[in-house]
Amino acid sequence: MTGIDDLPIRDELRGKSPYGAPQLDVPVRLNTNENPHPLPEALVARIAERVTEAARHLNRYPDRDAVELRTELARYLTRTAGYGVAAENVWAANGSNEVLQQLLQAFGGPGRTALGFEPSYSMHALIARGTGTGWLSGPREADFRIDVAAARAVIAERRPHVVFVCSPNNPTGTAVGADTVLALYEAAQAARPSLVVVDEAYGEFSHRPSLLPLLDGRPNLVVSRTMSKAFGAAGLRLGYLAAAPAVVDAVQLVRLPYHLSAVTQATALAALEHTGTLLGYVEQLKAERDRLVTELRAMGCEVTDSDANFVQFGRFDGPGGAHAVWQALLERGVLVRDNGVPGRLRVTAGTPAENDAFLDAVRAVLKESNR
Amino acid sequence: MTGIDDLPIRDELRGKSPYGAPQLDVPVRLNTNENPHPLPEALVARIAERVTEAARHLNRYPDRDAVELRTELARYLTRTAGYGVAAENVWAANGSNEVLQQLLQAFGGPGRTALGFEPSYSMHALIARGTGTGWLSGPREADFRIDVAAARAVIAERRPHVVFVCSPNNPTGTAVGADTVLALYEAAQAARPSLVVVDEAYGEFSHRPSLLPLLDGRPNLVVSRTMSKAFGAAGLRLGYLAAAPAVVDAVQLVRLPYHLSAVTQATALAALEHTGTLLGYVEQLKAERDRLVTELRAMGCEVTDSDANFVQFGRFDGPGGAHAVWQALLERGVLVRDNGVPGRLRVTAGTPAENDAFLDAVRAVLKESNR
Repeated sequence: MTGIDDLPIRDELRGKSPYGAPQLDVPVRLNTNENPHPLPEALVARIAERVTEAARHLNRYPDRDAVELRTELARYLTRTAGYGVAAENVWAANGSNEVLQQLLQAFGGPGRTALGFEPSYSMHALIARGTGTGWLSGPREADFRIDVAAARAVIAERRPHVVFVCSPNNPTGTAVGADTVLALYEAAQAARPSLVVVDEAYGEFSHRPSLLPLLDGRPNLVVSRTMSKAFGAAGLRLGYLAAAPAVVDAVQLVRLPYHLSAVTQATALAALEHTGTLLGYVEQLKAERDRLVTELRAMGCEVTDSDANFVQFGRFDGPGGAHAVWQALLERGVLVRDNGVPGRLRVTAGTPAENDAFLDAVRAVLKESNR
Repeated sequence: MTGIDDLPIRDELRGKSPYGAPQLDVPVRLNTNENPHPLPEALVARIAERVTEAARHLNRYPDRDAVELRTELARYLTRTAGYGVAAENVWAANGSNEVLQQLLQAFGGPGRTALGFEPSYSMHALIARGTGTGWLSGPREADFRIDVAAARAVIAERRPHVVFVCSPNNPTGTAVGADTVLALYEAAQAARPSLVVVDEAYGEFSHRPSLLPLLDGRPNLVVSRTMSKAFGAAGLRLGYLAAAPAVVDAVQLVRLPYHLSAVTQATALAALEHTGTLLGYVEQLKAERDRLVTELRAMGCEVTDSDANFVQFGRFDGPGGAHAVWQALLERGVLVRDNGVPGRLRVTAGTPAENDAFLDAVRAVLKESNR
């Protein structure tokens, strides 16, 4: 039987595995930063209505430019993120992964490089690889913040074409201040004309305001967002960006035509009608996230300050390291994420009951390892 | 105001325009090979049911591997295309464009080349550009068939990593025989280990059987399909491929994780339950397509034999060429497609009434130009 290595695939893919957390069937799944709140039934009904209408025209291609959806996303940002944008500033795709892929196709690609400050969202590097963009790994401090002086130095030396700043950062939960983003933007522009992408996938969960207002007067800055987390719609795959209209024009040169289906557009529009309810869930999750931080610290864990819907905790430097603890929690029915950060794991803020089950499991594992 | 040329986009994108036919609001739209039959109301209702169920879990990521959908697509192919495949042979994405993009990311890309026989589906070349794959244009005969000897010669000389064979070919409607595909596959493998992609987006409309059985014993062959045309679901954006399981493994190395939303999977599964009705529409469209060929020829047009749901017709070598005729038809409320093939236009088979309106408009335009 033919195996993958018998095929004429690209050399850099040989021996690689597909990205993705294990999808295991356990009682408490806190491993992929999903929102634990199912959509309210009123919204489910509205989705059915909107999709029914879209299905009646499904023989036709969808609105290629998704104008209604981009208009509503712009309204949402204007209302919640402290800066006025319009449809011409907004672009949407199948998950923020596709948004980032389109950005790298237009602004990265063969012969160009992208820089990220690691550990960070590992798809940034993988999407760089998938688009033929060289990847540069920048440093973080011991507490996972970005050291501005070190970051400026690496930008000046390596002169990347694209710079990723993930805020709040996945998997650490670390928010990046506006002053830091401004310093990185200036350093990046001084090195060469380059795109700076602020990945705000977890923006709604932050203690700090959105970085969106930094777009003002900065044509090479992009803020990306997703409906997967704050909107409780990971299954929808709807990511978007805000930027100068010229950036939106640029991604249209590389986007696949009609990339966003009529059912996706209809479902996203329904969800945007229920923003109030969904942002209420966000407030509950922020409180639960803060409780996780407090209780894990009370147990003696080292916990990274979190502005996201998840918490990085450790340190687990005993035999087997963090992975042994990951396994021990799984045996207690709690699935968290081992992102490969030494000595640390990441837990998603779930429902109060899920978080209680997680905290009990951690207590039991810590007690056992102290015996 | 910042324009696109002020941005640090890739040089090869400068001065380019986004792909896509004009989306004009005219009475008779026969320009994008859409299926003119809206989905039956029973299917619309089933879509609403399935999407409602999916929406209740929308806070969770979708099945990353879309196993149920791939299983049903495999059943459909097995039943209708004369060759047995299983879920492990099938991969699905947001339109066959995304399927082809993933194939080029895995098998093409920087430093590699892809070959197509033009005129053909212009997205093949554009997706090559978007993935950093070099593009090679192979020849067709005056009647738009592929000359096997010429094709073998260009393959032997240029040694492409990926070869596209579009059958039935867009925009000409030309089917490619199994013997031709076999000859091209053998030539391609003799030149270097390479992938041969048979694009059967219009396969269900052909007078000939599917080329799917050629997969038997050929691990570097891929057949791509779409639900946009035969399933009357252009708005759904669901493309798929069939190949050896190793090819499916390979595209999973480059696919964006969770690329296929839960609502897309639910809607496609609903449509697959109604295959019988939808394939009935295909038979009606084939009869209409044949009628268009006959009547256009009766008017004195030069018409390319068509195995698709569209017809290429001409020749318009007068002042303004084919584009002048395109414009004259548009002024009569009929939108067809000018694909840039000299002297020729492409018309999609619509409803009987739409086709009558088109034929009347052609008659009027021809009469006028003869005056």
